[in-house]
Amino acid sequence: MVNTIQKRLLMATTAVGMLATGASAETLDQVMARRGLTQQDLVSAAKTYTPTGGRDEFIVFSSGGQSGQIMVYGVPSMRILKYVSVFTPEPWQGYGFDEESKAILEQGKVDGREIHWGDTHHPAITETNGDVDGEYLFINDKSAPRVGVVSLHDFETQQIVVNPILQSEHGGTFVTPNSEYVIEAAQYPGVLGRGYAPLSQFNEKFRGAVTYWKFNREKGRIEPENSFSLELPPYSQDLSDAGKLVSDGWSFTNSFCAERYVGGIESGRPPFEAGCSQNDTDYLHIINWKKAEEVYKAGKVTMINDHPVITMETAIAEGLVYLVAEPKSPHGVDVSPDGKYIIVGGKLDTQGSVYSFEKIMAAVDAKKFAGTDPYGIPVIAMEDALHKQVPLGLGPLHTQYDSKECVVYTSLYVDSQVAKWDYCEGKVLDKISIHYNIGHLVAMEGETVNPKGKYLISLNKLAIDRFNPVGPLHPQNHQLIDISGDKMELLYDMPVPLGEPHYATAISAEKLKPLVRYKYGTNSRTGERHEGAVRPGQERIERDGTNVKVYMTAIRSHFTPEIIEVNEGDTVEFIITNSERAEDETHGFAVSTYDVNLSLEPGKTATAKIVADKPGAFSFYCTEFCSALHLEMTGFLMVKPKGYVDADAGAVTEGQAYTKADYDKQVANNVATQEVIDSVVVYITQRNYDAFPEVVSLVEDATDQLNFAAEAKAKSEEAAAKEDWQNATLWAGQWWQYQVKAADIGLRAKTFLDEHGAVKK
Amino acid sequence: MVNTIQKRLLMATTAVGMLATGASAETLDQVMARRGLTQQDLVSAAKTYTPTGGRDEFIVFSSGGQSGQIMVYGVPSMRILKYVSVFTPEPWQGYGFDEESKAILEQGKVDGREIHWGDTHHPAITETNGDVDGEYLFINDKSAPRVGVVSLHDFETQQIVVNPILQSEHGGTFVTPNSEYVIEAAQYPGVLGRGYAPLSQFNEKFRGAVTYWKFNREKGRIEPENSFSLELPPYSQDLSDAGKLVSDGWSFTNSFCAERYVGGIESGRPPFEAGCSQNDTDYLHIINWKKAEEVYKAGKVTMINDHPVITMETAIAEGLVYLVAEPKSPHGVDVSPDGKYIIVGGKLDTQGSVYSFEKIMAAVDAKKFAGTDPYGIPVIAMEDALHKQVPLGLGPLHTQYDSKECVVYTSLYVDSQVAKWDYCEGKVLDKISIHYNIGHLVAMEGETVNPKGKYLISLNKLAIDRFNPVGPLHPQNHQLIDISGDKMELLYDMPVPLGEPHYATAISAEKLKPLVRYKYGTNSRTGERHEGAVRPGQERIERDGTNVKVYMTAIRSHFTPEIIEVNEGDTVEFIITNSERAEDETHGFAVSTYDVNLSLEPGKTATAKIVADKPGAFSFYCTEFCSALHLEMTGFLMVKPKGYVDADAGAVTEGQAYTKADYDKQVANNVATQEVIDSVVVYITQRNYDAFPEVVSLVEDATDQLNFAAEAKAKSEEAAAKEDWQNATLWAGQWWQYQVKAADIGLRAKTFLDEHGAVKK
Repeated sequence: MVNTIQKRLLMATTAVGMLATGASAETLDQVMARRGLTQQDLVSAAKTYTPTGGRDEFIVFSSGGQSGQIMVYGVPSMRILKYVSVFTPEPWQGYGFDEESKAILEQGKVDGREIHWGDTHHPAITETNGDVDGEYLFINDKSAPRVGVVSLHDFETQQIVVNPILQSEHGGTFVTPNSEYVIEAAQYPGVLGRGYAPLSQFNEKFRGAVTYWKFNREKGRIEPENSFSLELPPYSQDLSDAGKLVSDGWSFTNSFCAERYVGGIESGRPPFEAGCSQNDTDYLHIINWKKAEEVYKAGKVTMINDHPVITMETAIAEGLVYLVAEPKSPHGVDVSPDGKYIIVGGKLDTQGSVYSFEKIMAAVDAKKFAGTDPYGIPVIAMEDALHKQVPLGLGPLHTQYDSKECVVYTSLYVDSQVAKWDYCEGKVLDKISIHYNIGHLVAMEGETVNPKGKYLISLNKLAIDRFNPVGPLHPQNHQLIDISGDKMELLYDMPVPLGEPHYATAISAEKLKPLVRYKYGTNSRTGERHEGAVRPGQERIERDGTNVKVYMTAIRSHFTPEIIEVNEGDTVEFIITNSERAEDETHGFAVSTYDVNLSLEPGKTATAKIVADKPGAFSFYCTEFCSALHLEMTGFLMVKPKGYVDADAGAVTEGQAYTKADYDKQVANNVATQEVIDSVVVYITQRNYDAFPEVVSLVEDATDQLNFAAEAKAKSEEAAAKEDWQNATLWAGQWWQYQVKAADIGLRAKTFLDEHGAVKK
Repeated sequence: MVNTIQKRLLMATTAVGMLATGASAETLDQVMARRGLTQQDLVSAAKTYTPTGGRDEFIVFSSGGQSGQIMVYGVPSMRILKYVSVFTPEPWQGYGFDEESKAILEQGKVDGREIHWGDTHHPAITETNGDVDGEYLFINDKSAPRVGVVSLHDFETQQIVVNPILQSEHGGTFVTPNSEYVIEAAQYPGVLGRGYAPLSQFNEKFRGAVTYWKFNREKGRIEPENSFSLELPPYSQDLSDAGKLVSDGWSFTNSFCAERYVGGIESGRPPFEAGCSQNDTDYLHIINWKKAEEVYKAGKVTMINDHPVITMETAIAEGLVYLVAEPKSPHGVDVSPDGKYIIVGGKLDTQGSVYSFEKIMAAVDAKKFAGTDPYGIPVIAMEDALHKQVPLGLGPLHTQYDSKECVVYTSLYVDSQVAKWDYCEGKVLDKISIHYNIGHLVAMEGETVNPKGKYLISLNKLAIDRFNPVGPLHPQNHQLIDISGDKMELLYDMPVPLGEPHYATAISAEKLKPLVRYKYGTNSRTGERHEGAVRPGQERIERDGTNVKVYMTAIRSHFTPEIIEVNEGDTVEFIITNSERAEDETHGFAVSTYDVNLSLEPGKTATAKIVADKPGAFSFYCTEFCSALHLEMTGFLMVKPKGYVDADAGAVTEGQAYTKADYDKQVANNVATQEVIDSVVVYITQRNYDAFPEVVSLVEDATDQLNFAAEAKAKSEEAAAKEDWQNATLWAGQWWQYQVKAADIGLRAKTFLDEHGAVKK
């Protein structure tokens, strides 16, 4: 092996060289002919293909639908980068398997009931002055009225809050322009506080609501104690949006089934779908949240489940809420970048309806209302609020804003198209067909005060025949559309392999600055130092009756301790700190036949807790392939049967005996290896490696490994001095293991330098 | 809306036309310059880019690592098509949330312990005569010794079996050439039957083993009662492979830590990684499984946990097992397509070691052994078994076969390279660098008697700087390599967003023939008719004390029944059949604040079971966006408080009253809509739509919807005859809902015909 390292080092970077000079066996024309690609396809390929190491310009955070997760992907490559678990346990991330994340899921219990999934709908990134800032992400759960908070510093879920009054929600999450509040609106009406009333009292006892969750930016947490709700009529509230700039301080929530219809097909009544879509219009709720905040702070609230609710009566009296008709069964409600307009589509309508905030305010100020709804809320006449209505096509659903003034894109569900139109002048500019049946769409930062244009993604609800078949349950389909030119161009079909995303939000990649590693010993779910974190050398096993705490470290490629003896019935907590500094050097931790897995990124401390209820010899091991000796990163959890007496307690049998000859052979090998490593070091340090942060980081890691090698060498020499050839040989082996890791990193650094045109100093 | 349908129908396919004629705003050269693409990048883009509706040539089934799932993706597009849950509950698929799949997870309990995840390692597709046939997929769990069986007819997990004797496994799954057996080998040694013995008795009491699970192809199930194991020494068994053609009847399992080292760094002992890699060689196990099957059938077994085990003593006496040394810390063991050679790499070695099956058999037949191991197993001398050893590079790990004779690809972990070499002549042909640190690799059908060549995928263990950063936990990286020419060419980097895949297997896409829909009323986890399946019209609620069974149907866009009243404390089972026939028309089912979600593909029946332990009015709803009126696909679960007396039991308040004028307006609208639909029908039937199976299927679906429309029309007219304008209007609305669905499908069919060059008859 030593000779091969030497050869690899001394030779030119053969492989890369070969790749560069190796001509493609096929010409471009041949490839196009073989694969049936048109010239337009080739342009699309060039617009999306991202070579190894390339970066995407935008990052999309997409709801994971019923998967209960967030899907993260890059644009324009449309490659999925990560699933972040929010409401559903996920073992790769240790989410719901380590004690730290279990505490987050515990927050998500509803009325004492554990819930192991979520129906995620609408993610929202924190905003500063109406612009997304990439610090935190919020996501709602429709199946249980909850909101999750994900830190974009480490892409981990750090909080779940349960809505205290709703039985169903949908219209969250949307943030106010400085993320003062996270908006969560109801969906299906219920008795506030999740109480009971018969359906015969639907109009009187059932209600909707919108909750304003206070967000503490500094702590990165929602503060339920500083949050409040506003009672609304039993219309099924749907999506929301916050006003911005001129309309800052207001929020908008639409609704369907303003008919307040209750189905009952089993009793011969027409189903919900008929009764909830009979009228030509539903209601857009217009809410003054800044004033509502004052009313809440003034204590003019009713407490329901210990949560302050502004009643409709108070809201009407204080001028907090108004209604305006909107075309039937609307879905998206979207405020323009300048805050002046609000665009709504009705899924059973054909128009884009553009409301003018100025006109709405004029009507409010003049108290010019067409009347009130059955609950006394003032209703503004449509004609007094509308800027324009523009015929777009069948089933307008959701609108996103372009960077070009007055230009928007609206999804047309029934037509399976996207309409590009001018909402100032009220004219359609272009249409493009998608496959099939588009729900929401997302433009780059298209919901902010400063949309970035360039790309639009159509979140299709059906894939049908778009991809290779994978059984009766199909993937969804996200279609990437180039909107940089006058005409929209379809670029790429991305299958969604897990869950049905409903809504997505995009941010410029450069705004995201996630961590590479945690500060040593961090509990990632609190962001604070973990009380069980230990440094190498501090590892220990503490017993307190039947409770055993094992304070451990993990590093390529061993755990400390390796042998852990407990008694049948003991509760065992493995509190493990990953003591690596290298980027991407994650370790896992699992115990055979037990229901635990940890994901330990560099610096993280996490806890696996088990009850050792069955005697036996169980292996624990690293579940992330971390080095050539990854499979050897293991140990034994010895669970002694009750009453078992061990004559040879603690003794270990050697499988193999080593002699001075073995020691000498190993040392000779190590010395030769060291010479090679030294020459790698020379190669690297003779070049301008310090101009490459990636290489600086690799050198740091290699230095760590060589320091470990030196420690193992010392132990080996100490044993050799005592003529303990067994330990001398094995520690010499360990010394070599560290050398191999250093060589691995060194070769990686060398390759990087060669590929990135480093020069000799 | 009617007019818009009309317009959409009559106009040329504007959108598509615009797309085709709309010139790209940028030229190809401009795009390449803007995105920094080389000519080589463009060729790679053309080789991988797959336009909308295109098909991949191969489908890869990749282990999902610690996610406990299977990842399915297409080659060359590298788009992930589906995650199939095997060991981990996943709500989108209803897996672990419906009663039918809970029964599968229940099979996976180990010693009574529920396990909610798995560490999946090695998937294997069923084979016929040594060729993958695409019927079933097996996958092992390293964290608990289990094997999952996935049907490739519907991509659902249908069985989990627990190994009765191992505490840890790794070397599965691999199948014999006609899938007679699924091979599962141990990893870390334990006391067989998961018993206890102190580590001082490691050499005497700890053992490895390999289990041969009998697969019943007709039933699609493993038969534990016809399966057996073979006891092996306490070497850490690793990967396996079955012989084929000339070597059919034999299987091969390698190992590491043949040193039988037990660590103990906490006691000053060198760690496992040192002691397990001290010797230059480990052992390859060579097993005659056909003869072992005979021995098992002859009853020469010891029962451990009711499972038949052939002891080492018997195995040696019967000539079932032999050993040969292999380079240290090997990983892959791969039999050549003709069955004549077995290639092994040692991760701490530099060579590819090619064993000759003929030579091995000659040594066995001649009883020419170098000696025995400490357990008496005959050891064949390396020189008597080796065909060649070929220097490849640092850390050879796994080998895959090309379609070209004698050509193989071996991953080099430490070098971060793939070596292409000739194992007949023993020479290296090419090398390519990957980023970073490749584990396994997969060539197209590269493990079969008939490899397909063309593509190779490098399953990298680290991504480091390859993608946009997403926090301390990085994605993995699968790199696609073109192997059709003399030189390997890197084509594409695919981030793996969930879990760390270890091994993958690929199959020609054309061999997969998954279902589009289930036979009406299928329990997908058994493949049989669900006893709770009902047809429309048969829906009912049955009560038996506090147990309530609700037999339901789901169709765009309502459930039947819609209102379900139960009492606090009742156990409620919702047994729901999706009565759709249309491809991809999946419905979901969730109950607000409850821990259930169903995925109901067309024809499937599944059960959501809850305990209604808290009174209230809870919405249930469809969790898959199924039509424009999807949000209206809802109902109420009314949980009456204990002792509640309802004066108006069953009564419903109308939110809105309708008159004859409303009825007339709706009917006029419907009549106009019908004219449009009729003209769509004319448009389609005048063309050769029957030449397009996709359109035939859409027409079938549209016909269904129009039949439903006719039923709603009849109800509407019946109510109108009684001057019941409320019901007359609402049923007329429902009639229109079906018309809109028919129009939606009709437009989809029309677009398809236009895009696929249908001609007028």
